[in-house]
Amino acid sequence: MVELKDCLALDRADPLSSFQSEFDLPGGLTYLDGNSLGPLPIRARERMHDVVDRQWGKGLIRSWNDEQWIHLPLITGRKIAHIIGAKVNEVVVADSTSVNLFKLLSMALRLNPKRRVIVTESGNFPSDLYIIDGLTGLLERDFEVRRAATGQVEDAIDDSVAVVSVTHVNYRNGSMHDMRGLTNKAHEAGALMLWDLAHSAGSMPLELNAIGVDLAVGCGYKFLNGGPGAPSFLYIAEHLQNQAQQPLTGWLGHANPFEFNERYIPADGIASNLCGTPPILSMAALDAALDVFENVDLNQVRSKCVALGELFLQLIDQQLGEFGFTVICPLEHEHRGSQISISHPQGYAIMKAMIERGVIGDFRSPDILRFGLTPLYQRFEDIWNTVATLRDIMLSGQWQEARFQTRDYVT
Amino acid sequence: MVELKDCLALDRADPLSSFQSEFDLPGGLTYLDGNSLGPLPIRARERMHDVVDRQWGKGLIRSWNDEQWIHLPLITGRKIAHIIGAKVNEVVVADSTSVNLFKLLSMALRLNPKRRVIVTESGNFPSDLYIIDGLTGLLERDFEVRRAATGQVEDAIDDSVAVVSVTHVNYRNGSMHDMRGLTNKAHEAGALMLWDLAHSAGSMPLELNAIGVDLAVGCGYKFLNGGPGAPSFLYIAEHLQNQAQQPLTGWLGHANPFEFNERYIPADGIASNLCGTPPILSMAALDAALDVFENVDLNQVRSKCVALGELFLQLIDQQLGEFGFTVICPLEHEHRGSQISISHPQGYAIMKAMIERGVIGDFRSPDILRFGLTPLYQRFEDIWNTVATLRDIMLSGQWQEARFQTRDYVT
Repeated sequence: MVELKDCLALDRADPLSSFQSEFDLPGGLTYLDGNSLGPLPIRARERMHDVVDRQWGKGLIRSWNDEQWIHLPLITGRKIAHIIGAKVNEVVVADSTSVNLFKLLSMALRLNPKRRVIVTESGNFPSDLYIIDGLTGLLERDFEVRRAATGQVEDAIDDSVAVVSVTHVNYRNGSMHDMRGLTNKAHEAGALMLWDLAHSAGSMPLELNAIGVDLAVGCGYKFLNGGPGAPSFLYIAEHLQNQAQQPLTGWLGHANPFEFNERYIPADGIASNLCGTPPILSMAALDAALDVFENVDLNQVRSKCVALGELFLQLIDQQLGEFGFTVICPLEHEHRGSQISISHPQGYAIMKAMIERGVIGDFRSPDILRFGLTPLYQRFEDIWNTVATLRDIMLSGQWQEARFQTRDYVT
Repeated sequence: MVELKDCLALDRADPLSSFQSEFDLPGGLTYLDGNSLGPLPIRARERMHDVVDRQWGKGLIRSWNDEQWIHLPLITGRKIAHIIGAKVNEVVVADSTSVNLFKLLSMALRLNPKRRVIVTESGNFPSDLYIIDGLTGLLERDFEVRRAATGQVEDAIDDSVAVVSVTHVNYRNGSMHDMRGLTNKAHEAGALMLWDLAHSAGSMPLELNAIGVDLAVGCGYKFLNGGPGAPSFLYIAEHLQNQAQQPLTGWLGHANPFEFNERYIPADGIASNLCGTPPILSMAALDAALDVFENVDLNQVRSKCVALGELFLQLIDQQLGEFGFTVICPLEHEHRGSQISISHPQGYAIMKAMIERGVIGDFRSPDILRFGLTPLYQRFEDIWNTVATLRDIMLSGQWQEARFQTRDYVT
């Protein structure tokens, strides 16, 4: 039987508790949606005021040089490298995750030109599925997109496969692929491995280099706290750089953009994956947010994440047994990312009632309640509060008030 | 003989002078680089503080609904429609100009599927040239990219051409295409017309609907003052919408993104041209900046722009005759956009010296000095100061101090 005092004791012993002061979360709020939008780091707030008022307002065009705007995609990328176990010259920040996926899929097909199959997973984040189809539809050649059912991705890989493109942690149920196992399986078949790290980068140690991952994309606005719609990052293993060009050949990927050559000569290395002029305001917020991670031990983050998850599951079991919830995330932490997902036929109304009570998770159609676990600013007490509020809402029937309201987005 | 008092008289009679208070330009600065980066509108500064501190900081994930973030690409697009002579359902804001060009070129080839030629101009902005080549390289089919020399674009159009893709106003010399004439020529040949409005949107009235333009892209950070790397906009004539899909099929272009269908069903109309999650911070700045244009008469903007340009040319003639400058922008305002371009063998050093003196234009390799004309915040006195400073630098030889410094970017 877990009690509130046990949660408070866990918080007192938390080696990451000092990072809470990096954020300025509103009082009275329990935030479990950092897997969708990370909160505002104080550093990012200060940086944005400076970027807007001084760099743009006073420096104007000069800030492209004086404030290093022109180098920001590489500077920010370098700050992500240690978070995903990559070298500093293997990561760049640009565009959105979907656009970066399009680039790297195109590149993968060029790197493996004799093969015609892309393997993905039917439960993958829809945008990833759409982008794969968007690319193969554009190519109009005889490509096959093989959407494996969950748990059957490995079985779909054979020696016709050019690239395997899946998301490390599933956005709905939080289940986590074995990155090493699947990467090895792809490589044994001669395929390239392209990971979408949207739901894992910043929430656990990743070892792209050690595992030998070829290509990856990831999200700036979830666990990295880069702000709404923050630009995405992409990773290309050093040995694959300069081997094939991605097709979105915008001027900032050129070797010498300010020479304005009429012929595209790709920049050396990762920079050739830049396309157009980057959204500096959004990128600066991400850059500042990443400074929070400079002294973070991601092993500690993962340990606390597992502990938060175990506590959450234990409390669900203990307090919510009679209300018809189903735990849909993996019970074994080895297979679970940084979220707890439960389903309920009235999930939408229940989540709306939770949010009205200041406990913020989110909802995924048709019936999933998602709760992100974010050890940098979350307390064990927050988990207690969340489950206690859920219980209270179910006991009081308060969720029924939200039931028939207009359905809006709960992103 | 023009004198300073004539410039001051022009400023006193300027019907646009009230818009200067929308900007907070640093004192002591003469800014003629709004064709590269527009200055900070006061509205955008206030909006950014609110978006960062309150919407992100306090509203967190809820702001996707409560602050309309999810609708911002369409909301901001609607604010651009009147500026370019389009209907409100024909414009959306997303990604970068280069990425949007890739989308619309792909769409154009699908709309005109029996044709295999893309016509562009060899002096086009290099990123546009690179994107055309990036796309045709990816397609690996028998497409021909026909790069016409300047002045010969019309002659390159025949009935094999699928799409003509050129930039309305040239980034180097400010020369302006006859939008109606070239669009008509393309249409007579059965080709689609795709304009890049990067150097014209916001600086003059545009009449995309009246002229019957098919497709267009444009830039948010130049004359629209949306901030460094602000997202781009794209336009698709209403009758061409829903006829062909662009290939960057990210989740926000889906008819129902929050239903997370595994099958891509494009949104109706312009929204299917969205791809990934937009950079909200950067987009919000553009959205606020566009409110400045709500009450702007673009005919007045163009008239003042022409007057600023005529004054500039007259003063160059009057004050800089002996220093070896060559005017490379068109002398007739009908063929000139919103910039004055002059060349000089020591152009780079001269522009550096100008910037050190607080007169900010920019430099384009190998020898071009560019000065943007931006009637909303520029005064005729600024033109006087610019030419006077140029003369002073040439007379004093001050530019020679800058001559051997490390070459950096002057974007």
